[in-house]
Amino acid sequence: MDPQPAGISREELQLAARNHGMPLEALRHEITPVGLHYLLVHYDIPAVGEEWRLRVDGRVRRPLELGLDAVRALPSVTQPVTMECAGNGRAAMEPHVTSQPWILEAVGTGEWTGTPLAPLLEQAGLLDDAVEIVFEGLDRGLEGGDEQTYGRSLTIEQAVEDGAILAYELNGAPLPSQHGYPLRLVVPGWYGMTNVKWLSSITAVSEPFAGYQQAQSYRWRREEHEAGRPVTRMMPRALMAPPGIPEFLSRERTVSAGQPVAVQGRAWSGWGPIELVEFSADGGDSWRAAELGEQAGPHVWRGWSVNWQPAGAGRYELCCRATDATGASQPLHPEWNLGGYENNAVQRVPVTAR
Amino acid sequence: MDPQPAGISREELQLAARNHGMPLEALRHEITPVGLHYLLVHYDIPAVGEEWRLRVDGRVRRPLELGLDAVRALPSVTQPVTMECAGNGRAAMEPHVTSQPWILEAVGTGEWTGTPLAPLLEQAGLLDDAVEIVFEGLDRGLEGGDEQTYGRSLTIEQAVEDGAILAYELNGAPLPSQHGYPLRLVVPGWYGMTNVKWLSSITAVSEPFAGYQQAQSYRWRREEHEAGRPVTRMMPRALMAPPGIPEFLSRERTVSAGQPVAVQGRAWSGWGPIELVEFSADGGDSWRAAELGEQAGPHVWRGWSVNWQPAGAGRYELCCRATDATGASQPLHPEWNLGGYENNAVQRVPVTAR
Repeated sequence: MDPQPAGISREELQLAARNHGMPLEALRHEITPVGLHYLLVHYDIPAVGEEWRLRVDGRVRRPLELGLDAVRALPSVTQPVTMECAGNGRAAMEPHVTSQPWILEAVGTGEWTGTPLAPLLEQAGLLDDAVEIVFEGLDRGLEGGDEQTYGRSLTIEQAVEDGAILAYELNGAPLPSQHGYPLRLVVPGWYGMTNVKWLSSITAVSEPFAGYQQAQSYRWRREEHEAGRPVTRMMPRALMAPPGIPEFLSRERTVSAGQPVAVQGRAWSGWGPIELVEFSADGGDSWRAAELGEQAGPHVWRGWSVNWQPAGAGRYELCCRATDATGASQPLHPEWNLGGYENNAVQRVPVTAR
Repeated sequence: MDPQPAGISREELQLAARNHGMPLEALRHEITPVGLHYLLVHYDIPAVGEEWRLRVDGRVRRPLELGLDAVRALPSVTQPVTMECAGNGRAAMEPHVTSQPWILEAVGTGEWTGTPLAPLLEQAGLLDDAVEIVFEGLDRGLEGGDEQTYGRSLTIEQAVEDGAILAYELNGAPLPSQHGYPLRLVVPGWYGMTNVKWLSSITAVSEPFAGYQQAQSYRWRREEHEAGRPVTRMMPRALMAPPGIPEFLSRERTVSAGQPVAVQGRAWSGWGPIELVEFSADGGDSWRAAELGEQAGPHVWRGWSVNWQPAGAGRYELCCRATDATGASQPLHPEWNLGGYENNAVQRVPVTAR
């Protein structure tokens, strides 16, 4: 068994108390209700008023400025998208990585409604020297010693081809303030940091964006001096809703020894459809295939289930792992990196059968 | 300055990652949007189906069983109610108290719609030997070594006179599952543990209820062997939305040295209306009265504001404290107790003016 996540510092507690994961029993919902979807607010939730406008400018032929009504008047799409924080699983990293201390719960699936990004870029007319599109929000803070506005970029190809939408509704209602009201970027299949909230500007640039959240954060590297590689799409992962009932403080689970247990969960990958979910009741020594539910869309998690019959009273360690259409699967143990990103090691749920 | 809250254990991190506080910038909302209101799920969120019924029985003349439509057909009230967890402030206790590690953010104000409890009890007809009403939810777990169903009681007088409602809507929409769908108890002015979620039974009893959440938890005591006193109504507290912008990890605030800062917050007490909020920019050495907003209802927090002009560049410690109509106010330092309850010590917000 892996070492369990250690305790955390006061600074990390401040983040854990503000931001929140999805309680894993909410895996029962295909579309995660608002308030259960994971939420990470990088700095503060900004107060956005009537004066809000979206600017589309930089290396474009026809700069645009649109109010919310104008954005809502553009062609719209509605799409369920599973979204996970790149730091999900960070708290299990050894040695400890100091940041938002997610265990496993930084995920959710929203039904996002908005306008596709690509036609808007076409309308603005990218100039030939544009190489990236920079997305900036209204949230501000200090990081790396400097004042920052949260910003991220995509290459032109990613911005045009990856199905990005500018979303103004979540689950059929206007975006909640904490999820980016009035507008956020949603790039299906990508980790959460991509999906800039409180979006205020879209800027075509002729040099790769060197903002903090692009060049410093969200890079997979083992040492500070490495450039590393950018964190982009979600690695494959299966999660189960922990069966039985919890003990209040330890959250350890108890099930009845004599009865079959319906274990259910969901699995996703940003690299391709889920083709296999496996389940283990012995800590990963032996595996069997789970039954898969329907795939409701190209970028939404896929349900899975197994009937597990405990062999008798005692302790078990339940595990699950997903494999996607590229053949990529999940490691048994975390792969450490400096920022604590992309830890898709298999979930381990200790259960006592009584 | 008080010692800052220390780090927490893995068990506490599990609770902090599941449950969540209200990010304090959300004090700008008089009614807290769903997803920003604090949330503590004691065990797991239960899956509640169509078969749900509310039973009203025990020491009554006419036991009742009602489906949700029947509850919704009863007379309804809509009331904004400020609700705070009894463990809010626990993380600042020294020595450390192990449980849900709230710093200051376990609060929110919902607009609850439901049917008043008192007429329903009248309809059932309490027998003369009834002394308490027990409220049980559908959430189950292990605690204190035993299997528990979450349950709490009120005396007959509290149940009839304190304005309790059985709520089926929050902010004008059906109760979200995490807030107790389909029905929860809401007792205005009381700490959060009172407001039993996923309510399934209301039972009149002839002996005081000795359930775990009544007799073991939620008692103010310094030693295990003491009976202590029950935790009931919310102690007075003022909170401010921390001004300026945060540093990502430390959450420390920075403001401009040359400009006045509009500091805003809200204050509440379960014992009476808020009559005074005071503000200090020097860690509590000197205080001045804040401007109070309207009191929108008997059990809803009251807005307050001050204009603060930093005397120049440097470090400041902003504090606020409330006084209610009973004359009760907030201590400068936490008053330690075994369960970490009722810590309404004044909020302290370190700010750097640059």
